[in-house]
Amino acid sequence: MPRSMTTSALSFTHPVRIYWEDTDAGGVVFYANYLKFFERARTEWLRALGVGQQQMRRSEGSILVVVDTRVRYLQPARLDDELNITVTLAEAARATLTLAQAALRGATLLADSRITLACVEVNTFRPQRLPRPILDALASFHRKP
Amino acid sequence: MPRSMTTSALSFTHPVRIYWEDTDAGGVVFYANYLKFFERARTEWLRALGVGQQQMRRSEGSILVVVDTRVRYLQPARLDDELNITVTLAEAARATLTLAQAALRGATLLADSRITLACVEVNTFRPQRLPRPILDALASFHRKP
Amino acid sequence: MPRSMTTSALSFTHPVRIYWEDTDAGGVVFYANYLKFFERARTEWLRALGVGQQQMRRSEGSILVVVDTRVRYLQPARLDDELNITVTLAEAARATLTLAQAALRGATLLADSRITLACVEVNTFRPQRLPRPILDALASFHRKP
Amino acid sequence: MPRSMTTSALSFTHPVRIYWEDTDAGGVVFYANYLKFFERARTEWLRALGVGQQQMRRSEGSILVVVDTRVRYLQPARLDDELNITVTLAEAARATLTLAQAALRGATLLADSRITLACVEVNTFRPQRLPRPILDALASFHRKP
Repeated sequence: MPRSMTTSALSFTHPVRIYWEDTDAGGVVFYANYLKFFERARTEWLRALGVGQQQMRRSEGSILVVVDTRVRYLQPARLDDELNITVTLAEAARATLTLAQAALRGATLLADSRITLACVEVNTFRPQRLPRPILDALASFHRKP
Repeated sequence: MPRSMTTSALSFTHPVRIYWEDTDAGGVVFYANYLKFFERARTEWLRALGVGQQQMRRSEGSILVVVDTRVRYLQPARLDDELNITVTLAEAARATLTLAQAALRGATLLADSRITLACVEVNTFRPQRLPRPILDALASFHRKP
Repeated sequence: MPRSMTTSALSFTHPVRIYWEDTDAGGVVFYANYLKFFERARTEWLRALGVGQQQMRRSEGSILVVVDTRVRYLQPARLDDELNITVTLAEAARATLTLAQAALRGATLLADSRITLACVEVNTFRPQRLPRPILDALASFHRKP
Repeated sequence: MPRSMTTSALSFTHPVRIYWEDTDAGGVVFYANYLKFFERARTEWLRALGVGQQQMRRSEGSILVVVDTRVRYLQPARLDDELNITVTLAEAARATLTLAQAALRGATLLADSRITLACVEVNTFRPQRLPRPILDALASFHRKP
């Protein structure tokens, strides 16, 4: 889905190990838990961009919230599996950004997704401009040939 | 999204109370947890149709797995909220069915979704024909004017 | 463990259904999830006593936090099981209270626990006096022969 | 609680990062989630001992289940915190072992626990002898002066 990118700000991988807590009685990872894995990887991607969510909340009074998710489940993950969760910037606007995220086990694609986040004021949930480091990453993204 | 229906087999509501476990440090329900609520409501809808998932697994060796989800998050839910989770049959085929599901607080729509399930053999995850009670519900669905 | 009681304020039961989200690949309920069930039942017990935790936070700036848990796991619960979660007031002090809680399936005891809560100021986590409705319930508890 | 040990088989540390999924509307980590962290660390400790739980299930038909937990919650953990989860072998018998586990943030003890596991047959949940690598670790434990 997303065009290929080269900088770490625009494409990112975070490892996730599957524990008992992640599985269900079907013997595989419960479908809601992929959203946890995607969130962990987004948090680490933001951290790598220099965006601390606690700090963003304190200094700017804004947080990122998920407004839309599309997830396709292709293959199940199981206990003890080591997954790689990817984050790729797909689209951006003044107050929202859309990421392509996937869960892979080795070369096998287990799940892929498109997730849209909005930046909102922490109490009112009114739209806010995205934090500067994300906007800067977006700017370099749009300058790509 | 789905056309209106009148029978309980085709449209179903399940109440969910929000507890501490469902919330996060943003003060609202964590986005992955709506998939838990949707799953609970689907299970109760199946039970109302006469489909026991444990029994289906034992007698037919098949389970229903989620293969696709699309969720839009419109308004946050908070601690102590009482939600209604709806299940509406949207589309069906021999081995898959698609549901429209929503989370409401009173008349306020908090989240809506389209979720596709596949019936698979429990060990190999190969596609299986849907269980008879679901197929029967589908048949009556298609007979609707 | 606790002496027998007769009023609903001092002994309370809350039903819990087991869904996919609660189970793990061992085919049974994941051990951490009993703490979720115990918390749900405590919240409903507090609600029955007239103690709203959101309201308590807003009006008094205090919340109840768990400081000690002891849980014994005796029999596993499985998908589709209907459990009853009990709450019984075991001991109380000015700023803490201890509950005996259990999970039962019919007459079968699956898990029992002793859980101590402290009332703390929401930002500093400093000990606070328990809310009046709980203290009143305690008072009637201590008047029991 | 446990006496000091020197070998990696008997004392073990596993890092855990706190994400949104771990927190609740109180702004801190939900109490049940420490049991998830303790389980992750136990799984990694077993892996370090050469005990694969999936493999143990397939080759011996047995799994480890938790039968008793005692957890004391001393200080809250918050979003973005980096914790260290420790595992120390405290006691052992033919079919059960007891671990002391703690959650620390730097030098600050947040929670400590004593957790007893039993080895059981996967279908009947009847007690089984512990796997050999654990028994060997225990043997070296008991030889300590």
